[in-house]
Amino acid sequence: MQLGIIGLGRMGGNIARRLMRGGHAVVAHDQDAAVTSALIEEGADHAASLAAMVERLEAPRTVWVMLPAGEPTEATINTLAELLAPGDIIIDGGNTFYKDDIRRARALEPKGIHYVDVGTSGGVWGLERGYCMMVGAEREVFDYLDPLFDTLAPGYGDLERTRGRNAPDDRAERGYIHAGPVGAGHYVKMVHNGIEYGLMQAYAEGFELMQSKSSEALPEDERFELNLADVAEVWRRGSVVSSWLLDLTAQALAGDPRLDHYTGAVADSGEGRWTIDAAVEQGVATPVLANALFSRFSSRKENTYANRLLSAMRFGFGGHVEPPK
Amino acid sequence: MQLGIIGLGRMGGNIARRLMRGGHAVVAHDQDAAVTSALIEEGADHAASLAAMVERLEAPRTVWVMLPAGEPTEATINTLAELLAPGDIIIDGGNTFYKDDIRRARALEPKGIHYVDVGTSGGVWGLERGYCMMVGAEREVFDYLDPLFDTLAPGYGDLERTRGRNAPDDRAERGYIHAGPVGAGHYVKMVHNGIEYGLMQAYAEGFELMQSKSSEALPEDERFELNLADVAEVWRRGSVVSSWLLDLTAQALAGDPRLDHYTGAVADSGEGRWTIDAAVEQGVATPVLANALFSRFSSRKENTYANRLLSAMRFGFGGHVEPPK
Amino acid sequence: MQLGIIGLGRMGGNIARRLMRGGHAVVAHDQDAAVTSALIEEGADHAASLAAMVERLEAPRTVWVMLPAGEPTEATINTLAELLAPGDIIIDGGNTFYKDDIRRARALEPKGIHYVDVGTSGGVWGLERGYCMMVGAEREVFDYLDPLFDTLAPGYGDLERTRGRNAPDDRAERGYIHAGPVGAGHYVKMVHNGIEYGLMQAYAEGFELMQSKSSEALPEDERFELNLADVAEVWRRGSVVSSWLLDLTAQALAGDPRLDHYTGAVADSGEGRWTIDAAVEQGVATPVLANALFSRFSSRKENTYANRLLSAMRFGFGGHVEPPK
Amino acid sequence: MQLGIIGLGRMGGNIARRLMRGGHAVVAHDQDAAVTSALIEEGADHAASLAAMVERLEAPRTVWVMLPAGEPTEATINTLAELLAPGDIIIDGGNTFYKDDIRRARALEPKGIHYVDVGTSGGVWGLERGYCMMVGAEREVFDYLDPLFDTLAPGYGDLERTRGRNAPDDRAERGYIHAGPVGAGHYVKMVHNGIEYGLMQAYAEGFELMQSKSSEALPEDERFELNLADVAEVWRRGSVVSSWLLDLTAQALAGDPRLDHYTGAVADSGEGRWTIDAAVEQGVATPVLANALFSRFSSRKENTYANRLLSAMRFGFGGHVEPPK
Repeated sequence: MQLGIIGLGRMGGNIARRLMRGGHAVVAHDQDAAVTSALIEEGADHAASLAAMVERLEAPRTVWVMLPAGEPTEATINTLAELLAPGDIIIDGGNTFYKDDIRRARALEPKGIHYVDVGTSGGVWGLERGYCMMVGAEREVFDYLDPLFDTLAPGYGDLERTRGRNAPDDRAERGYIHAGPVGAGHYVKMVHNGIEYGLMQAYAEGFELMQSKSSEALPEDERFELNLADVAEVWRRGSVVSSWLLDLTAQALAGDPRLDHYTGAVADSGEGRWTIDAAVEQGVATPVLANALFSRFSSRKENTYANRLLSAMRFGFGGHVEPPK
Repeated sequence: MQLGIIGLGRMGGNIARRLMRGGHAVVAHDQDAAVTSALIEEGADHAASLAAMVERLEAPRTVWVMLPAGEPTEATINTLAELLAPGDIIIDGGNTFYKDDIRRARALEPKGIHYVDVGTSGGVWGLERGYCMMVGAEREVFDYLDPLFDTLAPGYGDLERTRGRNAPDDRAERGYIHAGPVGAGHYVKMVHNGIEYGLMQAYAEGFELMQSKSSEALPEDERFELNLADVAEVWRRGSVVSSWLLDLTAQALAGDPRLDHYTGAVADSGEGRWTIDAAVEQGVATPVLANALFSRFSSRKENTYANRLLSAMRFGFGGHVEPPK
Repeated sequence: MQLGIIGLGRMGGNIARRLMRGGHAVVAHDQDAAVTSALIEEGADHAASLAAMVERLEAPRTVWVMLPAGEPTEATINTLAELLAPGDIIIDGGNTFYKDDIRRARALEPKGIHYVDVGTSGGVWGLERGYCMMVGAEREVFDYLDPLFDTLAPGYGDLERTRGRNAPDDRAERGYIHAGPVGAGHYVKMVHNGIEYGLMQAYAEGFELMQSKSSEALPEDERFELNLADVAEVWRRGSVVSSWLLDLTAQALAGDPRLDHYTGAVADSGEGRWTIDAAVEQGVATPVLANALFSRFSSRKENTYANRLLSAMRFGFGGHVEPPK
Repeated sequence: MQLGIIGLGRMGGNIARRLMRGGHAVVAHDQDAAVTSALIEEGADHAASLAAMVERLEAPRTVWVMLPAGEPTEATINTLAELLAPGDIIIDGGNTFYKDDIRRARALEPKGIHYVDVGTSGGVWGLERGYCMMVGAEREVFDYLDPLFDTLAPGYGDLERTRGRNAPDDRAERGYIHAGPVGAGHYVKMVHNGIEYGLMQAYAEGFELMQSKSSEALPEDERFELNLADVAEVWRRGSVVSSWLLDLTAQALAGDPRLDHYTGAVADSGEGRWTIDAAVEQGVATPVLANALFSRFSSRKENTYANRLLSAMRFGFGGHVEPPK
């Protein structure tokens, strides 16, 4: 198939590459022309502007927008809405809030433009491993785009088949699903990322415990000098906690078991937050997902007002003076 | 009554004072003789050693130990166990783990020495407001010591009586209870402190939210410049969250609304920890009490291994580089 | 002053009463005419409709809306917007989301109608104790309405003055504050309720621990048969955890220490949820407030999908079959 | 090698099998003789008693105890201590608390008996996949037992090697490590299980969110009818949350997407609890691991005292009556 791709950063560039390697024709655009040149060498057609891209594509046109969620994506889609024609398709492959997808689809409907949200997991490894995709779309539009998803997805790979699985549609086993109508793709991806936060925090807390037990601050007879790189490695084999995140942990610790060059500040993105908003809206208890998010908030702060107030109360009732930090 | 008091720090000194003002005779001992001299002027008899104290007391002797929990208390009680006679009473008024109380009482039983655990709340305000006491003891021993507790307790005060309360024993209304057998006093005090951690953290998080909403980092039209001293003050009157901790908060914020001289490191003590151990042992979910404790742990750390590992994983799967702290 | 009050439920009716007792003239309206008749006997003027109320009020008119947040309040304010004139004032005293206040004030601005949000705490006790109020309004409008707030507020009472407090404006000490511009009143009230959830949960967890320690399921030598009504009572006097919520706990336990007639399902309202949304939006860690909310979510559910999935995983990796509930 | 195995349940029986298939000679004992007969057919030598087993083994003897932690293991080791001779080795492969390991090793030392703790992960899949083992032992004892661990472990398998790993000892890559001195094996296994709880709860919360979003209680335009079996399946391929626990989830949902036959009560075992005790002891914040444990506690309870107390307070301050459950 032919499609346009807007935004050729870490994710967009590799999506373009994987599509081209799979035989699709890509018209590429990025604000930063330098970024595009590498792709041109690999076979992409270059469009200097959105208008140029739309001209270069044959109707019905498919445009994959792979930009930061929020303003950049919103502005681009608004511009495309003016340029595209009935029957054309806009795919938002970024990390958009699912309610924004629903709003946009409704706004595009009178123009006859179809909107598709693709939650995409795979990060920097996607070019090699393939992308795991959760798609929100009208059923026919999803089917029409199937060749693209088929190319991007990992496929069966050498993963053991799920025992007892007996579903007529094998696309989930090849790495992509039609999650439901517009919004469903990003909803599922949002929850995916919420879970990701929880998983990461579970490992982080466990390794912190083991590192603390190895601390020279402990009396020698209470201390275990654990080799955390070996622990991560051994858990990869046959243990209940084996996972891709553990593989990455083993990899990080193999090279640098002390992780000293990190500052301890951990960013969070929209999806972790929206997951908690959804939990609050839906009345679902998510203590683990919420606390994982809160841990990241705290990681970026020192000396919070909350903590100072605790000290002030402790002084107030007990005359306690905190020890120096 | 006559009694000995060992440990004349912030708590012990004021307990001695309040008892003397109530007409009791105090024989006082502290490792630091300087501390004792002020009390002597106020009428205390001074004992230079535990042996001297025991000699000075008439049988059956009552000795109130008011020392830091753990080693100092343990060592003193072991020494007293050698010096005291059958029928004598040791009171541990400190913050001892309740299982240690039970162990000690069992060890003293063959010697005929009675053991009493008194959970004491009131902090630096106790001299003035009286002490709230939860006592673990044999029933007869508790009754024998009643005059001491009666003097130390706040009494009815001008607090409104609890509607519907119709208990024959009014000691709870005067500020002390016989919680149960040995250990029960410190158990109840332990839970009291666990709750205290939760309450404090609830206020701290709420005030942090309001402070953050007042932050100059926010665009002006999203910001409220809240006067947190006024908020604390107004909540003292007629609101659902009024409490003594809120009174202390109002007091702290009246003098220093920014709380800038605190470092944000908040200490914790045994009881907050034992409460969570008890919850784990008893299979009771205590997410609020546990998270309040964990917040204090985090307050004293920067750049934890857990957070660095999160960053390492984020780099591993997404090539994310954390922003500077 | 003269004012209209719409909504004469538990809160609105008592607000009307307290205002009339303070010498203000009230024009009252409620969908349910029966509710109004009691107030008429106490001196209220009755308006059968919003239009009738607006006619009955002298310009500039003040109308206090005291209805459930959301649709009922929104619809009433929309109707009032059509009936009122420039210079008139609408007060929303309910539990509205603060961003809705800001939106409404902006919508009313072109009509010259002023909007005021009043966060009101005090519950069923307000008639007697007075209401604690946090007001969001233009400064001049707040000052104009001062006589109303002055009447409704608890006043100084016999509460000890806050040491070190030296603020020129004593309204906080009398029970109401100008929190800031429109929205600020409900924002502060929202955080108030968020804190309330945290405080309540802290007590609940602590009492659960003590009840569990009194359980006959425990071997006798591990059990304390704690009198929880006495514990609550004794903590009211001189302890660090004394509060109004503890007073209410003591009252509930005095009458019914087992609390057997409650089902264990606990409702939550908008403010507890919005507090967590605000925390997520502002990037503030609120583990205690969030977990308190989640505990309520869980209290209303049995046999969740989450728990069933845990069992399914446990069966999957270990062949574990859960014991019967 | 020759060794004795005591306890032939789910774990012990398969460990015996895997060892025999690897060429080791097993003397087997179980309280329940019926259990042993299957193993005898597969080549095990049967010992009717511990004494018989000890006689049957050649010195230096190795005895692997694979019993429930606590009393059964403790009693067996005490008996073995009387029967064994200097130079013999006791292996505890169960889920023992690591401080018990240390205590036992100290008690056995004067007798010249070596003690080894093996944290074993792999559950019912171990026979097929191999067991992941974390061993606490004196270095020479660990090396002496190496052939056993080598047989039991999964080996390299077809797992991708960890990039950047460059450790001289490849045993971690084959599925077992010498974690450290006695106790270190079970310590690492304890943390492993703590992490396991956190991971499981993260998935559980996420799937609950998606199930709730599919609920017919929602208005149709807010609902996504998500196919959770497909979601689990698609995430197995290329997503950040892929893991063995996700594989098991996909398997469970393939057969029974509603999981209706589970009651929602989820058991917990010692290790999840000890992990939190360790966190409290070491002063490490583990909100995710603790909340995962607390969720299990709550899953087994209805109508807790904590929740009833919340309702009582709500009635007290607001006259709120909870809606029926």
